[in-house]
Amino acid sequence: MPHESRSCSVPHSLSRRGFLAGLSAGAAGAGLAACASGAARDLEPGVEVPGDREGEASRLGSEKVPFGGEHQAGIATPFQAHLNLVAFSFRGEADRGAARRLMRLWTEDARRLCEGRAPLGDLEPEMVDAPANLTVTCGFGATFFDIIGRADARPEWLGPLPAFSRDRLDDRWGGADVVLQLCSDDPVTLSHATRHMIRAGVDYVSVRWFQQGFLNSDGTRPDNATPRNLFGQKDGTVNPRTREEFDDIVWIDEGPDWLRGGTALVVRRVAMDLDEWEMLDRTSREVVMGRTLDSGAPLTGEREFDTPDFEATDSYGLPVIDPASHVARSTNPKDAPHQKIRRRAFNYDLPPEPESGQTSNAGLIFICFQKNPLDQFVPIQRRLDEKDRLNQWITHIGSAVFACPPGVADEERGTARNDTGRDAYWGATLLED
Amino acid sequence: MPHESRSCSVPHSLSRRGFLAGLSAGAAGAGLAACASGAARDLEPGVEVPGDREGEASRLGSEKVPFGGEHQAGIATPFQAHLNLVAFSFRGEADRGAARRLMRLWTEDARRLCEGRAPLGDLEPEMVDAPANLTVTCGFGATFFDIIGRADARPEWLGPLPAFSRDRLDDRWGGADVVLQLCSDDPVTLSHATRHMIRAGVDYVSVRWFQQGFLNSDGTRPDNATPRNLFGQKDGTVNPRTREEFDDIVWIDEGPDWLRGGTALVVRRVAMDLDEWEMLDRTSREVVMGRTLDSGAPLTGEREFDTPDFEATDSYGLPVIDPASHVARSTNPKDAPHQKIRRRAFNYDLPPEPESGQTSNAGLIFICFQKNPLDQFVPIQRRLDEKDRLNQWITHIGSAVFACPPGVADEERGTARNDTGRDAYWGATLLED
Repeated sequence: MPHESRSCSVPHSLSRRGFLAGLSAGAAGAGLAACASGAARDLEPGVEVPGDREGEASRLGSEKVPFGGEHQAGIATPFQAHLNLVAFSFRGEADRGAARRLMRLWTEDARRLCEGRAPLGDLEPEMVDAPANLTVTCGFGATFFDIIGRADARPEWLGPLPAFSRDRLDDRWGGADVVLQLCSDDPVTLSHATRHMIRAGVDYVSVRWFQQGFLNSDGTRPDNATPRNLFGQKDGTVNPRTREEFDDIVWIDEGPDWLRGGTALVVRRVAMDLDEWEMLDRTSREVVMGRTLDSGAPLTGEREFDTPDFEATDSYGLPVIDPASHVARSTNPKDAPHQKIRRRAFNYDLPPEPESGQTSNAGLIFICFQKNPLDQFVPIQRRLDEKDRLNQWITHIGSAVFACPPGVADEERGTARNDTGRDAYWGATLLED
Repeated sequence: MPHESRSCSVPHSLSRRGFLAGLSAGAAGAGLAACASGAARDLEPGVEVPGDREGEASRLGSEKVPFGGEHQAGIATPFQAHLNLVAFSFRGEADRGAARRLMRLWTEDARRLCEGRAPLGDLEPEMVDAPANLTVTCGFGATFFDIIGRADARPEWLGPLPAFSRDRLDDRWGGADVVLQLCSDDPVTLSHATRHMIRAGVDYVSVRWFQQGFLNSDGTRPDNATPRNLFGQKDGTVNPRTREEFDDIVWIDEGPDWLRGGTALVVRRVAMDLDEWEMLDRTSREVVMGRTLDSGAPLTGEREFDTPDFEATDSYGLPVIDPASHVARSTNPKDAPHQKIRRRAFNYDLPPEPESGQTSNAGLIFICFQKNPLDQFVPIQRRLDEKDRLNQWITHIGSAVFACPPGVADEERGTARNDTGRDAYWGATLLED
């Protein structure tokens, strides 16, 4: 089957937005003038013109992220605008056979959805033909290994994280047997794909929790600009970006075969107290973060990606970046260069709980990927838990860890580790007898 | 203050997406080639390139819908991708003075937000600088007129709708003192703007309910293509589009001064049973609707906007469009040409309620605008309530009606009906002593 993606040799973020960057202002102006002289007849400003262009591909809608590969998509993939993170519990007497059947089914269906094709049993091709960079990423929880009778294969880091003193964890956002991370730039596509995956697995698993998040839409910010969280901060400035960085930080390259090329997913649900945060003036907010709000630059720099200078002092001899600021506490120490993670966080904003007296119910679905959470997320979070000015306004209310198997073959065929050397479906090497 | 919108004389839907339509395939291809030879170095497919273009306007982000005008924005405005519909209750001893202060404040803040400027007291200009077609639309509930001591000014149609036999209304989605409809193509902008409006009004009103909805993203479907609901149906094919149609159907042009140029907003929350709907084959789904799923064409036509032919019969002499189908029942009879509405419906898709046993909690936030719901929405809904094949899969669970005052002046100044002949703030003519 030919590979349908348009973006196999180009970072897809460039193909997504590169068109516009190349447009001269003159061309844009001419386009507008043409519109004004034509279709505006009989219409008032803001009134829509009926569209009747069946089957015409749109730009963003037709963008695809390759499904097969050495690693699962949705990890190094640039942020999409929308997230559904769904955790599942196996039903009743599930065993390795059930897990295998589920993974075969899910992998095949996810592949089709990401390629813009309706999975078997999905009678709505119109709901899948605009993948808009859809990715579906699968992870296994600690209990998954008991269900499949392979406790021996469970990574030592897989399980509840060590307790942090400030945690206020709610079990409703806790660990689960298996997780799917679905992301897309179109919320209708995402809704349908999520719905399909839940339904496809209904004989094997039921939903344990469901976290919905969002970021700035594609097209509303410049190419790859770092999205903002609901405190107005650029969120995700420090992230691996090159192949070497991902190899160093994210992709597991030792231990059991079934996990090589995979990674560890940590999800923390972080409530953000907007009511209190907004009491602060901007200077205080910037001191808390150690970065400016506008550009996201460290207080010792001018641009977002400048390296913070924690030694710099002001005219009084005081540090320019407060040692208790979020950037100072979260940056890895020089003697621990491996304490980095791939962040992929999304905002949530729900109606306030009735009777809570609060005006918001918002926060961050903090997702990160790394080789080993005990060596990466945990020491970072321990520093933040001990001291971080931001702690006054945030509370970790959910925590879960999953092991993401490596990517699968580019095509549907064969069994475990087919002739491409890749799994035929998620976890095939682990699940085949 | 100069008017900042770029789209005052062009339907903004064209300015939104017209650029791309004008791009030749050659130019796009050249752009991609340039990307491939350049920035892809050291990156694997899908890895993002850091963006560092502070202050560079993006296309969709900088799009604005004019705030001032004869009518409020957000009614004739083409669909944006995201909706927050927030209903409020006045606190304690509110009176006309409180309502007046709230409306002055809200109008000014909404204007600034829609123009991409931070309202007073909002310290986060970075969160408002990409309006992405943000609109904020205000409506008054029946009880609003008691609070302001103007029961005499309450439109006779404003109040709970007549009961329909199939309604299963939950008071948690019922009528309220006042409502704000906020829509944007960027979910972060929308979240921040909603948050700001709730906070700005906090001395006067508290949130009664909060409905969040979405449609296909801008950029994921062709120009103005009708968006799809979660049954996969094109939703909104039949809608007024010309100035004459809006004048006939939507804008109130008689009765009290304060409401001329305004309209009536009806919101119905409609639960959709995806589990049962998906048991149907495609043919049955199309019979239920009387339209095809792919193009949305009536079963007697070929294209979405073809007029249904309810007289057409097949080779057995049976009607091609089932008289009990949704399109047959919802189309206005020839002797009642006024039974039309401006539809502006958004999908919702929430995590299933725990213990419900269902795999979905989805539906439609059905918003419509008209001169008089008793003459327009109600007779249409009465026909549907009596007989509509679709009823088997949908349930109306919420209902509320609001009176939307006309638009306001283009600039902030003056009091009621300033020299432009328009209100200085929402409801000024009603609220000034």
